[in-house]
Amino acid sequence: MAWVFIQKETGNGIGRELLTHLSQTSNRYHLFKYPALHAVARIESSLLAGARRYFYQKGFTEITIPHITRATGACENISTMFEVDFFGKRRYLAQTGQLYLEVLTQYLEKVFAIGPSFRAEPSADSRHLVEFTLIEIEFRGGFEELLNHIEGTIASMVDEVLMRNRADLEYLAINSSRLKLSHPFKRITYSEAVEILADKGVRWGDDLKSDHERYLVKHFGDQPLFVTHYPKKIKFFNMRENAFDQTVVNSADLLLPYSGEAVGAAEREFDHAKLTKRLLESTMFNLLREKGGSLEDFDWYLNFYKEYQGTLHSGCGIGLNRVTQFVLGLDDIRQCTVWPMNIESDS
Amino acid sequence: MAWVFIQKETGNGIGRELLTHLSQTSNRYHLFKYPALHAVARIESSLLAGARRYFYQKGFTEITIPHITRATGACENISTMFEVDFFGKRRYLAQTGQLYLEVLTQYLEKVFAIGPSFRAEPSADSRHLVEFTLIEIEFRGGFEELLNHIEGTIASMVDEVLMRNRADLEYLAINSSRLKLSHPFKRITYSEAVEILADKGVRWGDDLKSDHERYLVKHFGDQPLFVTHYPKKIKFFNMRENAFDQTVVNSADLLLPYSGEAVGAAEREFDHAKLTKRLLESTMFNLLREKGGSLEDFDWYLNFYKEYQGTLHSGCGIGLNRVTQFVLGLDDIRQCTVWPMNIESDS
Repeated sequence: MAWVFIQKETGNGIGRELLTHLSQTSNRYHLFKYPALHAVARIESSLLAGARRYFYQKGFTEITIPHITRATGACENISTMFEVDFFGKRRYLAQTGQLYLEVLTQYLEKVFAIGPSFRAEPSADSRHLVEFTLIEIEFRGGFEELLNHIEGTIASMVDEVLMRNRADLEYLAINSSRLKLSHPFKRITYSEAVEILADKGVRWGDDLKSDHERYLVKHFGDQPLFVTHYPKKIKFFNMRENAFDQTVVNSADLLLPYSGEAVGAAEREFDHAKLTKRLLESTMFNLLREKGGSLEDFDWYLNFYKEYQGTLHSGCGIGLNRVTQFVLGLDDIRQCTVWPMNIESDS
Repeated sequence: MAWVFIQKETGNGIGRELLTHLSQTSNRYHLFKYPALHAVARIESSLLAGARRYFYQKGFTEITIPHITRATGACENISTMFEVDFFGKRRYLAQTGQLYLEVLTQYLEKVFAIGPSFRAEPSADSRHLVEFTLIEIEFRGGFEELLNHIEGTIASMVDEVLMRNRADLEYLAINSSRLKLSHPFKRITYSEAVEILADKGVRWGDDLKSDHERYLVKHFGDQPLFVTHYPKKIKFFNMRENAFDQTVVNSADLLLPYSGEAVGAAEREFDHAKLTKRLLESTMFNLLREKGGSLEDFDWYLNFYKEYQGTLHSGCGIGLNRVTQFVLGLDDIRQCTVWPMNIESDS
């Protein structure tokens, strides 16, 4: 075995330097020989195991969700959906299983799904993949429980790595003390975030860019940071309005060091009339209409809330690779998985 | 709660009768109210948990594999691949991650992936889905170890259900004694199977049809049955030739009661020249060529075995829903998952 871990004075081992090779997405098979990639693979595997361990402990049921969907598989951005010819009908590769999980909370209470999420991102960079693993949960319950579940899941993921991957962490020169998370995670509202970012030109109603997210995380001591209650206008149509301020929704983004937004979460609206109204007003729906879509694309979902009773439920999507970025301390998401997929991928 | 389990004299409870509703794939959301579907969901979840429990125990690493692939994501049948326009290039929705996992066994020894497999099956029936969950493992090692891993995985899946889903099994009137598997699983060779099926018109070299598989399983006492050493000509190009009889490969299909073929498995060829030759001669490759494909589609995979050393490795794909069929005792695969996907699916 030619690869031996040597702790350098800087605290960076051989493995860490090898990670820089892993930005390459074409001819990926050339990189499989690097032990740094093997360590990344084992860490990614543990992160998934840690998430599931939490879900099983809490009584979540794993659901097999569809990945060829109508527009109900879209997140916010219809324009980055891959299209599939489904026996003569237009379908999309799912970006999220959220709506498919949501309707089941009514009966199964707590559900989760882990699988690929597809985004037709036309440029290769260090932040975006065209296919990545999304960890999604939905459950009957509200905002506080939601934030607890997210915190519990992230903690369980990181703990699994600390338990199982000591050698890999050392080989990659990762300071484990950085992974000791302080609980509960710090929370600020979107409005508070905007105040902090005011001298960076951020105004209320703007979406936060990744360097804003990074600034906020640094500002609060390089620990996981919840930013809650975003403006309704810039968020997904079914995020539930706040009862006291209807310009914001009961949402939470979890920002992590290195990756920024790693989790998007919210209480979900379940009133049929409100859902229909919010959908029709949404930017997403206008984009869908421009592409020839209509309200019919959301038929099954809207009909469910018309025909069956809805109850308060909440959920989130956790971008696995964003958590891996945090654990590995890497700015480049392509270094955080075995087969990172972007426009340059040729396998 | 209106649904109460009533054990009838026939051994069939209310839940079992409700299962018949679950063949419906259009307007699927109408079925979510049925407690029989909730029981199926929980059982499916346990089967997945059981498979992973086995993989973790045996030291397998979970790999995130790509689902938008070149022809290297094809199983035997190129003609049932969904095409995706990948930024102007032709790509497919993966039917298998096998080749993507195989190359990693060289370094990570034992790997697995669980995710969607896509087949553009143009007709709706009780045996085929256009999207289903495939459980795949690849590891360094040979035939005996392969059969042991399959047996261990299936046993762990079923055990998890027996452990966690007693109430669901009772509600669905499933006789648990049927799920007590006798170990080791019975094995016959393909040639022995053909002898047994001779008076059904089966000749050596024919593929076995689902009613043949069902007959064999019945013949051997309605227990899991391995059929090994299929003719090379009708199997995937990289299945490894048998050293003593080069007309057959070191393959194994696991047949289960109710579902028939639930697992396809084999030792894998790793010699570059042989792989290239076998690929060029394969039916799959001829179909690919007719569709405008070429050897270039297999570039990364073939180059890997040209440029890096290969070693003996083996693996299998387990169709989750086929195992669910066995557990539930159902002939119809559409009744065995929450969101069965076929040409009629409209969500």
